[in-house]
Amino acid sequence: MSELHVYDTTLRDGAQQEGLNLSVADKLAIAAYLDELGVGFIEGGWPGANPKDTEFFERARTELQLQNATLAAFGSTRRANAVAADDPQVRALLDAQTDVVTLVAKSHSRHVTQALRTTPEENLAMIEDTVSFLVREGRSVFLDAEHFFDGYRTDPAYAMEVVHTAAAAGAEVIALCDTNGGMLPPQVTDVVGAVLDGTQARLGIHCHNDTGCAVANSLAAIRAGASHVQGTINGYGERTGNADLVTVVSNLQLKLGQQVVAPERLNRALHLSHAISEVTNIVPYGRQPYVGASAFAHKAGLHASALKVDPDLYQHTDPALVGNSMRTLVSDMAGRASIELKAKELGYDLTHDPDLAARTVKRVKDLEQQGWTFDAADATFELLLREEVTGESLEYFDTETWRVIMDSASDKGPALSEATVKLSAAGRRVVATGEGNGPVNALDHALREALAGAYPELAAFELIDFRVRILDAARGTDATTRVLIETSDENGSWQTIGVAPNIVHASWLALVDSFTYGLLKRGVEPRT
Amino acid sequence: MSELHVYDTTLRDGAQQEGLNLSVADKLAIAAYLDELGVGFIEGGWPGANPKDTEFFERARTELQLQNATLAAFGSTRRANAVAADDPQVRALLDAQTDVVTLVAKSHSRHVTQALRTTPEENLAMIEDTVSFLVREGRSVFLDAEHFFDGYRTDPAYAMEVVHTAAAAGAEVIALCDTNGGMLPPQVTDVVGAVLDGTQARLGIHCHNDTGCAVANSLAAIRAGASHVQGTINGYGERTGNADLVTVVSNLQLKLGQQVVAPERLNRALHLSHAISEVTNIVPYGRQPYVGASAFAHKAGLHASALKVDPDLYQHTDPALVGNSMRTLVSDMAGRASIELKAKELGYDLTHDPDLAARTVKRVKDLEQQGWTFDAADATFELLLREEVTGESLEYFDTETWRVIMDSASDKGPALSEATVKLSAAGRRVVATGEGNGPVNALDHALREALAGAYPELAAFELIDFRVRILDAARGTDATTRVLIETSDENGSWQTIGVAPNIVHASWLALVDSFTYGLLKRGVEPRT
Repeated sequence: MSELHVYDTTLRDGAQQEGLNLSVADKLAIAAYLDELGVGFIEGGWPGANPKDTEFFERARTELQLQNATLAAFGSTRRANAVAADDPQVRALLDAQTDVVTLVAKSHSRHVTQALRTTPEENLAMIEDTVSFLVREGRSVFLDAEHFFDGYRTDPAYAMEVVHTAAAAGAEVIALCDTNGGMLPPQVTDVVGAVLDGTQARLGIHCHNDTGCAVANSLAAIRAGASHVQGTINGYGERTGNADLVTVVSNLQLKLGQQVVAPERLNRALHLSHAISEVTNIVPYGRQPYVGASAFAHKAGLHASALKVDPDLYQHTDPALVGNSMRTLVSDMAGRASIELKAKELGYDLTHDPDLAARTVKRVKDLEQQGWTFDAADATFELLLREEVTGESLEYFDTETWRVIMDSASDKGPALSEATVKLSAAGRRVVATGEGNGPVNALDHALREALAGAYPELAAFELIDFRVRILDAARGTDATTRVLIETSDENGSWQTIGVAPNIVHASWLALVDSFTYGLLKRGVEPRT
Repeated sequence: MSELHVYDTTLRDGAQQEGLNLSVADKLAIAAYLDELGVGFIEGGWPGANPKDTEFFERARTELQLQNATLAAFGSTRRANAVAADDPQVRALLDAQTDVVTLVAKSHSRHVTQALRTTPEENLAMIEDTVSFLVREGRSVFLDAEHFFDGYRTDPAYAMEVVHTAAAAGAEVIALCDTNGGMLPPQVTDVVGAVLDGTQARLGIHCHNDTGCAVANSLAAIRAGASHVQGTINGYGERTGNADLVTVVSNLQLKLGQQVVAPERLNRALHLSHAISEVTNIVPYGRQPYVGASAFAHKAGLHASALKVDPDLYQHTDPALVGNSMRTLVSDMAGRASIELKAKELGYDLTHDPDLAARTVKRVKDLEQQGWTFDAADATFELLLREEVTGESLEYFDTETWRVIMDSASDKGPALSEATVKLSAAGRRVVATGEGNGPVNALDHALREALAGAYPELAAFELIDFRVRILDAARGTDATTRVLIETSDENGSWQTIGVAPNIVHASWLALVDSFTYGLLKRGVEPRT
């Protein structure tokens, strides 16, 4: 009971964010990252409410190997004047086969009568019936008490009845939700304290950021005795978003000395936050606490000299604890430690060659300036590092030209893409053409066709993921394009990146790196 | 003394934000907007420290007519072992000719010895001398006690001596600064309370958002007795930024019932926040509390039916109070209620035609199944709705074919794109070609070229944002592509979407919708 629950709802409440639309594959990928971060619970979605979430839970059973987290299915209490055991929505929650089921229930009497259009008594019966049915079926049941704070203000007796009913029916957690997000910390403190005076139940807190206080409200509730905190990664969520779990966990652990996740997991917070941004395709917020790109960036000037004396004078915490690093205009050494560490991970020791390390740092910084990012492109980074170490780039073939033509008989019909590549490999010049739905697909086919003779090993490679981000979007269609590709073979998968003004050019660079890295890892020598 | 000071430092501390660079003209424009919002004080910059700020104060005297606000010049206490009256930096503060001068001073003993490299006693002498000199010269002097909270934790006696020294020398405000931003609300409450127990001075609060608590910390200080709050518009500032004054003021006024600015000024908060974003050229943050584009946007179907009954059930405040408005987002989570609500927003009443509403819902759901999303593409949604209502689609031209060719002499050189469109408009067949960095850019140019004769109105349209998302990415390069485009003219901006396996095809659909919607809104009739 004393240990704090960290309950993530990125996949359900976070997905309510404007512009965020997750596929089942996206949800599975995010769940794996959340598990890596060390959250205790992952709310996967609302099975039965939409086919995508039903599919998620089906696929999660075989495709998701969680090390730390417990999966939770979200749903609501049964319909009014029905029986939980016969309610299809409740049955769908059982079919999801999760250990935990989280039920949303009304706790605000006006919502019961006006939105749910039933009586306060029937709402309590719905809670009692649904919770106890699911408990009998072997589920741990958590209750999200919707609009709890507004409800408590209007009708505290009824709000407390909801808590008592749920607890008596066997709910293990009662999460008090500031659904509309209008609370400030002192109100949260008062209400959580008052509720805890009247119940033995484990209380949770679920905050939204409409007053800019989601994090502070979550901490206020924990301080007042809540021992279950809900939130989302990067604060994704409807309207102004939910409490950002990255910030909440970092504050608890680094400011309040409460160990919530293993320190080595928190060290990966920046990486995981950004990896999830790649999946959601929402540009990371530079000013995000702890993990934002600017979070430990200092403009030179007043601070510069002091920073040299003692960085702690101008940093509220050690950025390495969340995987971030201090950036200043005067410190060209910033980043070297992490590059050396990364190189070591990949089997290259740079610590004995400061020049090589410095050269690599500079090259990485220059490329990042142009829009490259190596967080999610280990394979391209390793090729770059290998090039710096060996002094030569690895080339399996010699490209002459590539070309893509796309046309359409009308804007109603499907477009056709045709790619032609001209290159030399294994001593022969080859001209090959590939067709595809899109330009990258056509190019991939053409390149495989051209290289099939020289490198039959390529047949084992499969492109499993492909992401595009337009950089400097505010310049309209003149923007630069970043393409990230994930490729797999029977041994695993690897990520590569390409950046260019033209999407096909960027894709070409990422494709070439993908093939090059794959061949290198298979021990194939260049046949030129 | 009782009235709360709202002190804006956007032009000084806000300008420390990474990527923010303000000209003198920018600063003058922002100051006028800040005055319109009703802040009490505008910190204009550090005269003498850089020529831009010196010029700002010179020009402000003639070019800036402030109605409400008082201008403040920012600087530091005199150099160690010198005389304030002879210190050029202090003289520059006088030359700025502002009623208020805000002095930054060290209040953390370790910063005094390690960063300032002087003695704690001399630091107190610098404060006494500089404050009293400026007071004798007729200035109201405010003191920013830098690193106060960290300093108080390390050496409370010295921190208090700084407060006493400044107050005795005549400082009207002593602003306690959480310079590194590491505080949480309970610590702020404790320290502000303790300091107020030992002084009669007016205390201020200056927070940064490194723990995600800048707003909550500011409110905690005010609750504990501080009566001067510093912050920046939109939370601009170094690292994670400063306390967002828009949120702070909205919370004080709408949540705590404290009238801080005239209600009719707060009604313009969204407009002024966005107008300042135009000057800073920093894209407004959609999830910003109160004034963010998403701050009152609702996506969940669950909420939409209740919203129809009573918007207050799902809104923490009336968005009109800050100049915002409720928006309903159309998504696959939405049902008929949200589509009807959305249609009403756009001026179409579907409630009297259930068939039409049902047909629209079905069409939206089918399209979303294929990867379309309308919550970020209002314009495409409106065209679709219009088509359902009128029974015909709006076509300004008749497309025959389009084609894009991309090629590269090698994978090292830049790729070139060339697009050709063939279409009929205003009774003429046109063949036009456009070039560009990328395929979409080339297509945009070709389409504008082709339509310039028939629709000269297009010249007013500018593509301001362009986003690409690959869907079902896990299928590799066979994936479907979603393109979102934002276009603006002098009246505003609009978003359109296109989805197709081919990125150019998807872009074509979004471009055509963008042009169609823009022409429709300008009242242009199709010239076919």
